Amino acid sequence: MNVKPKLPKGFRDFDSKTLEKREYIIKIISDVFKSYSFQKIETPSVESIETLSGKYGDEADRLIFKILNSGNYLSDYDLNNNADYKELTRFISKKALRYDLTVPLARYISQNINNISFPFKRYQMQNVWRADKPQKGRFREFMQCDADIIGSKNLINEYELVRIYDKVFEKLNLAGTIISINSRKILTAVSSKLNVEDKFSEFVILLDKYDKIGKIKFIEELKNFNISKEDSDFLIKIIENPDIDYIKSYLSEFGISSEGFDECKYIFEKLKLTSNFCEIKFNFKLARGLDYYTGTIFEVENSKVKIGALGGGGRYDNLTSIFGNNELSGVGVSFGLDRIYYCLSELSLFKSSNELNKTLFLNFGERELNYNLKVLDVFRESGISATIYADFSKIKKQMNYANNLNYKFVVICGENEIKSKMVTLKNMITGNQITDKVEKIIKLILSEKTD
Amino acid sequence: MNVKPKLPKGFRDFDSKTLEKREYIIKIISDVFKSYSFQKIETPSVESIETLSGKYGDEADRLIFKILNSGNYLSDYDLNNNADYKELTRFISKKALRYDLTVPLARYISQNINNISFPFKRYQMQNVWRADKPQKGRFREFMQCDADIIGSKNLINEYELVRIYDKVFEKLNLAGTIISINSRKILTAVSSKLNVEDKFSEFVILLDKYDKIGKIKFIEELKNFNISKEDSDFLIKIIENPDIDYIKSYLSEFGISSEGFDECKYIFEKLKLTSNFCEIKFNFKLARGLDYYTGTIFEVENSKVKIGALGGGGRYDNLTSIFGNNELSGVGVSFGLDRIYYCLSELSLFKSSNELNKTLFLNFGERELNYNLKVLDVFRESGISATIYADFSKIKKQMNYANNLNYKFVVICGENEIKSKMVTLKNMITGNQITDKVEKIIKLILSEKTD
Repeated sequence: MNVKPKLPKGFRDFDSKTLEKREYIIKIISDVFKSYSFQKIETPSVESIETLSGKYGDEADRLIFKILNSGNYLSDYDLNNNADYKELTRFISKKALRYDLTVPLARYISQNINNISFPFKRYQMQNVWRADKPQKGRFREFMQCDADIIGSKNLINEYELVRIYDKVFEKLNLAGTIISINSRKILTAVSSKLNVEDKFSEFVILLDKYDKIGKIKFIEELKNFNISKEDSDFLIKIIENPDIDYIKSYLSEFGISSEGFDECKYIFEKLKLTSNFCEIKFNFKLARGLDYYTGTIFEVENSKVKIGALGGGGRYDNLTSIFGNNELSGVGVSFGLDRIYYCLSELSLFKSSNELNKTLFLNFGERELNYNLKVLDVFRESGISATIYADFSKIKKQMNYANNLNYKFVVICGENEIKSKMVTLKNMITGNQITDKVEKIIKLILSEKTD
Repeated sequence: MNVKPKLPKGFRDFDSKTLEKREYIIKIISDVFKSYSFQKIETPSVESIETLSGKYGDEADRLIFKILNSGNYLSDYDLNNNADYKELTRFISKKALRYDLTVPLARYISQNINNISFPFKRYQMQNVWRADKPQKGRFREFMQCDADIIGSKNLINEYELVRIYDKVFEKLNLAGTIISINSRKILTAVSSKLNVEDKFSEFVILLDKYDKIGKIKFIEELKNFNISKEDSDFLIKIIENPDIDYIKSYLSEFGISSEGFDECKYIFEKLKLTSNFCEIKFNFKLARGLDYYTGTIFEVENSKVKIGALGGGGRYDNLTSIFGNNELSGVGVSFGLDRIYYCLSELSLFKSSNELNKTLFLNFGERELNYNLKVLDVFRESGISATIYADFSKIKKQMNYANNLNYKFVVICGENEIKSKMVTLKNMITGNQITDKVEKIIKLILSEKTD
């Protein structure tokens, strides 16, 4: 068993420095969710296979991590008669790991429908697992941060969710953040004008690729859709200059109307009531997946760091019907923690560590120990994070330890200090040293007047 | 697919009220860990099977949740030749869910040994999964809260960990909490006097059962060990009146010595330096599992609520050797979140909700909406958690919603208020209503002078 252990691919450890930064982001997001009166819930990591399967499409179903039944799972199964892994899986696995936070939310609502007051504003920040091929920036376990409002079709909800995006990125001080808004209804209206309704999915996928493949390639691929020159010019125009009023009036000439236009306009009007940190714009190209959303859709990106969407969301009208309940319209946003982390790192936007007032007491040996332990206790009671070096090692080794672990202060409390009932405080950043009474030293640390 | 969904047995949803209480406990534990200079790490939920298996004993190995390989996991496997589920499992599952936080810690240290400064003081608060039979108070997914010090054999570490227990239960205000201390070395020394060294495991299991089965049954079962009358009397005496000095001097008459006595005494002496909230006592019956610990052991219980151990821990000398590294001695404590939660509930020790300054703006319709959204924004900027009822429903329905969700305040901002540039605040607990300028109302809420 003496083999050097390894982590499975796509899974990560987090050390304390990384966690501190992650928790800085998590706290900002959850504080904003709370200030908008969202209630936190948590669902278990493990759900029944029946709850998850068939909800994400065939492609995604294969990416669900399945858990092997416990005990002798073959006892009731005639193994020799079956060599198909898909059938075997149905038999030997009844549980799976959470794939996203939305299907568990639907299951939660369905199970608790009589105890929930609607509109139900819930947020959830938990890990999800996907058996995706691991690659740079894509992990098999990652945190999703979702806020959803279930049971209200009012567009105030959309307005509030955009405000949440804006407020989070303002608090993160992530300048250059762009919130794009579109509506699936607008995409449908335009596809109707272009006569591509029967190829709607392919059309939307092509739109989504516009930025990646560029205008020339886009026009080339557009030929597959048999679109007239006039329609093609119109499409390019609204991609390059997305203007809700223009699209609406242009389509109305052809008898095509859509409430998507008025909905988007309403949201943008409301967003003018207050000042916004992010750039908020209508983006006709925005599609956000295919079969899921039914109304407004959102996406967040940063213009300075090319890492893809930092968040996304939208309105879906059939959330709980998958579990046989009445349809409840929902609208939600999601934050991608790992990508936001990457952005803040790239732009050096993480504040310096909060842990800098950590204090290490040097350990001079048994004779001085009791005095040191008592002083240590007073430090902690005053709210200072502190510890004593656990072994009676050489002072040089102890100082190295303080340096390696970024202790800001070292407390020296040897024979002389004990005699004079004082302690010596060394600031490890400036090298300054000061000897004074315990209360004075504690005041100095807490007021940070020690540099 | 319209089947009412169910959670798998032993797994739980948490609503916002439950989470608030859980997070109250979690924050107290992590604040104390931090104030003792422990660094937080996190390991992934999923580890390689090789990392976990063979580390917990055969019994526990069966309780590890195993994850099915992705894709066609049977493609390289001649299914017909094998009907044994154990062999099949080795082939079709290479990953498993975290079973505890200790083996992942050992794996983490082994992988990062050159980047860690020892003594390594880490804490970890994450879920673990066990395929145990679910029953009252026993779940298949639950949170463990562990603090360990790796790479120091000094007993200051034991002292500090007992102080951590004491401080956490003081902050939780959980009166009647008892911290028991023993040493595996003392158990070994006594078993040597009793000549039961070859039945050490069974002996310790019997000791552990003393409180459950009572003295008479204990003495009866003791007969299986062929212990002399004199030894049996000695054993009963040190169970009923555990006294380190007495056991030490009694055994020394027979030439049996053990550093366990001096170690325990040292820890108790140090604990006299500061005042303690919990009762801290030597308990000869304490055993804490069998093969794991090698020195001091701890256990925490509450005398008022009979739910079993609220925490436990101890010293283990062979943590990293399981992964082929040099032996690093470790000592740690663990808190059982679910049981602490149960205790606090039973004794009504949870403080009232922090969410009580939540504010709901009534929604009077589109004409009043813009004014309300602007005021809502000012509320949130002032740090008040607030929202507007999302639909233009009847006021009675909106007031019911505020009641159901325990909103403390309702803001009424209708035609009259808008004309006079005022807002009306209704305290939902007292029923009192007050109309004033926005800034005044915000000040009132923040100073809580609204009752």
